[in-house]
Amino acid sequence: MSARAAIIVTGTEVLSGRVSDRNGPWLSERLRELGVDLAHTTVVGDRPADMLAALEWSASLGVSLIVTSGGLGPTADDLTASVVGGFCGREMVLDDELEERIADILRSARINWRQWSLESIREANRKQAVIPAGSTVLDPVGTAPGLVVPPGEGDGPTVVVLPGPPRELQALWGRATETEAFARAIRGATVYEQSTLRLFGLPESEIAVTLREAEQAGVALEQIEVTTCVRGGELEIVTRYEPPAAAVAMALEAVIRERHAEVLYSDDGTGIDEQVAALLVERRLTVAVAESCTGGLVLARLTDRPGSSAYVRGGIVAYADEVKQRLAGVAPELIEAHGAVSEEVAVALAIGACERVGADIGIGVTGVAGPGGGTPEKPVGLVWIAVTGSDGERIVRRTDMRGTRADVRERTVVTAMHLLRRLLLDLAAPPVA
Amino acid sequence: MSARAAIIVTGTEVLSGRVSDRNGPWLSERLRELGVDLAHTTVVGDRPADMLAALEWSASLGVSLIVTSGGLGPTADDLTASVVGGFCGREMVLDDELEERIADILRSARINWRQWSLESIREANRKQAVIPAGSTVLDPVGTAPGLVVPPGEGDGPTVVVLPGPPRELQALWGRATETEAFARAIRGATVYEQSTLRLFGLPESEIAVTLREAEQAGVALEQIEVTTCVRGGELEIVTRYEPPAAAVAMALEAVIRERHAEVLYSDDGTGIDEQVAALLVERRLTVAVAESCTGGLVLARLTDRPGSSAYVRGGIVAYADEVKQRLAGVAPELIEAHGAVSEEVAVALAIGACERVGADIGIGVTGVAGPGGGTPEKPVGLVWIAVTGSDGERIVRRTDMRGTRADVRERTVVTAMHLLRRLLLDLAAPPVA
Repeated sequence: MSARAAIIVTGTEVLSGRVSDRNGPWLSERLRELGVDLAHTTVVGDRPADMLAALEWSASLGVSLIVTSGGLGPTADDLTASVVGGFCGREMVLDDELEERIADILRSARINWRQWSLESIREANRKQAVIPAGSTVLDPVGTAPGLVVPPGEGDGPTVVVLPGPPRELQALWGRATETEAFARAIRGATVYEQSTLRLFGLPESEIAVTLREAEQAGVALEQIEVTTCVRGGELEIVTRYEPPAAAVAMALEAVIRERHAEVLYSDDGTGIDEQVAALLVERRLTVAVAESCTGGLVLARLTDRPGSSAYVRGGIVAYADEVKQRLAGVAPELIEAHGAVSEEVAVALAIGACERVGADIGIGVTGVAGPGGGTPEKPVGLVWIAVTGSDGERIVRRTDMRGTRADVRERTVVTAMHLLRRLLLDLAAPPVA
Repeated sequence: MSARAAIIVTGTEVLSGRVSDRNGPWLSERLRELGVDLAHTTVVGDRPADMLAALEWSASLGVSLIVTSGGLGPTADDLTASVVGGFCGREMVLDDELEERIADILRSARINWRQWSLESIREANRKQAVIPAGSTVLDPVGTAPGLVVPPGEGDGPTVVVLPGPPRELQALWGRATETEAFARAIRGATVYEQSTLRLFGLPESEIAVTLREAEQAGVALEQIEVTTCVRGGELEIVTRYEPPAAAVAMALEAVIRERHAEVLYSDDGTGIDEQVAALLVERRLTVAVAESCTGGLVLARLTDRPGSSAYVRGGIVAYADEVKQRLAGVAPELIEAHGAVSEEVAVALAIGACERVGADIGIGVTGVAGPGGGTPEKPVGLVWIAVTGSDGERIVRRTDMRGTRADVRERTVVTAMHLLRRLLLDLAAPPVA
C-alpha cells in the first residue's frame, strides 16, 4: 500500500513562461520526504475549465492528495478556491472570522502602501475569505489563507490549496501537514530510502555503461529506481528504493565508487557550495575573486549562503582591461603579451584579488562568454580559471565550453567552485569537464 | 476554430525538483507566438505508465499537438521515444542512417572525453536510433535526435519529441516547425494579439481595484483575458485578445495609463534590463558598481546581456568593511559614524565605484540580506541603494524588504536597475516598493 499525490500549479503567468515555477519543485521534495509518491506536476492557466480538468484527471489516477498553488489573490483571475470547492462538491461560504483576520493583516501592512486607501485594499481582498464549506483554514502569512479541503462525498482526493508566493506557500505547507485531513490523505505512505552520488567531469554516457556493467555483474537494478542527471558539468545519480532493496543499492554504489573514485565528490547529499563553505570555515580561510566574463556570478555564488561573510571578503569584477590593471593590479605587459584571455592573466587576477582584498585564497576568471568577441585562437566558450593559495599552491584550468552566453557563464561558476574545493583539499585538477 | 496543444516534460530529476524546468516556459512562448493555445504543461517522472497517462489525458482534451521534452538520452531511464511510439500505435524500428549519424557526431565529440572508449559511448547511444516507424527525424544538435510523430490511425494528436537539454531542444524546435506534420497539427491556429504593461512599485491589490473600476466604467473585460503578476516589486499586466476585441484592450490600457502613469515603465514588451542597456548605449555612458549584501548580483545582472562590455566597466564586491575602504575608498569615519548599512555609505560606495573603476555612473548597495546580522535599528531586509551621476545627480533609496535572503538580494537588484533607469531618465525616485 502506498500514498500518491499530484501537484497542480495554477497561473497564466506560469503557464505562459513569464514566471518560472518554484513551488512544484519545492512541494515535490516535501512529498518525497513524507514518502508520498508524486504522479505529476501540472501547470494550468487561470481558466476554471482547465483547472477542473487537471483536478479530475489527477483524481482519475487514484491519487489521495492534490496540492494546488496559486490563484488565491485579490484579482478576478484568482479562481482556485471556487474551482476546488466545485470539484469537491462543497458550497462556497463567506468565513466572517477569516475576513476579519485578513482585514487586520491589511491594516498592519498598510504602512508600506501609504498611498492607497484601506477600503480599496479591503474590498479587493474580501473575496479571499469565501471558501468551500467544511475546509480547514490555514492562517495566512501574506494575505491569502491556505485551505485543506476534504472530499465531499465518496473517497476522492483531499485538496490542499496554497497561495502562489513561495514564502507564503512554504509557511502554510507546514500548517497543512499538521491537519487531520492531511494525515488521512497520506495514510499508507511508504518510506523510501534514497541515496545521492555526485560526480564532476564525467559524461552521462559513461554512467550508462557503468550501470549496464553493474547489471551484468549481477546487481539487480530492477529492484531500485536509478536516475541520472547532468547539469553544468555535474552529474547526479539518485537511487531510490524501499528498505528491503538496500543491499542492491549498496552494491551499485560500490561499483560506481570503484569505477569513478576520482570524480566522485559527494555521497552524503551535500552540494559543492555547502562543501566549499564548510572547508573554508573549518580551515578559517578567506577567499577573494577577480572575475571578468562571469561578471560577478562567482562572487554572487560564494555569497549566496547565509554566514558567507565569514569567508568571503569581497572581490573585483574586471570587465574592462583597464579595470583589470587598476583594481586587480594585472600588469599591462601581461595583457599585451598574452591577451586578456590567457592563463597568465587568470593567475594574475587571482593573485591580485588576494592582495588587493586581503584574503587567503584568490580566484581569477577570464574568458569569452559570447556570443560576440570570439576569434579563431580564442573562440567563444574559452575560459581560463585560476585558484591560488597563500603558499604558492595553484590550480589553473583551461576549459572550452559550448552553449549560450548563460551556459558558459554558469558552467564557469560551477567549475570555479570545484577548483576551489580541489585546492582546499589539496587535490590535483579534475579531468576536463 | 483554433489549435490547442499540451506540453509534457519528462524526467524524474525535474519532477523531483532537483532540476528546474526551463523547457516548458520556453516552448509555451513559442506556441503563443504561433497562435496555438496551451492547455497545460505536465511534468512526469521517467515512468512509462505516467508518461502514457499524460499523453492520453492530453489527447482526451482534444489537443492536436503534444510537445514532449526529455527522455532521449543514452541511459535506460530514457524512454520517451518508445512510449510515444506505443501511444501513436507505431512500431519501433532501428534507423540505420540515424545510427550512423549519431556515431559520427560522437566520433567528432570524442576529443572532449579522451579517457572514454568510443565503443562504450557508441553502444550507450545506439538505442537513440530506435524510433517509431513513420516519424520525421530532426537532425541532432547534441547526440539525441528529435522526432515528429504523426497520429497512427484516426485523428489523435501529432507528437513532437524533443531532447531535454535546452540548447538542443531549442535548436530542434525550429526544425520541427518546418515539417509538414507540424503544419497539419496546428492548422486553424488563431493569431491572438497581446499587450503587456509593466509597472514598478504598485501593489497587486491596487490593480484589482483599477480593473473593477474600469469594468464599472464600461470596459467589457469579459471579452479579453487579463492576467497580472508580481515579481520582485515589478507588476506585469498582460492582456490577450482576439483582434475584434482590440478596442476593449485599448480602453483598459488607457485607464491603467491614467491611474498609474508614474509607475508605468514599459508598454512595448521591453524589460528593465533591455531599457537600461539601451539608455546606456544611446547616451554612451558607462556604469560601475560597489555592492555589499548583493555580493555581485547587481554586476552579474548588468553583464547578463551580450554586448554589455560597451557600458559595464566593472566593479567591486565589498563584503568586509575593510574592503569597502581599501577598494571602494569609503572613509573609515563614515562607517564609524553611520554604520556600514547607511545612506552615507551607500553614496560613498557609488562614488567610490565610479572613481576607482573610472565610469560615468556609480551604483552603491549596502544592506542586511539576512537571515542573521539584523538589529532593532537595522533589521534584516533594510537596504540602502544609491545611484550617482558624474554631474552630482543622485538618487538614494532606503527599502525595507521582506522574505528570505534570496528574496532580499533579488529584490534589491531589481530596485537598483529601476533607480538606474530613473537616473538615466532624470526622473524622481519612484514610490516605495
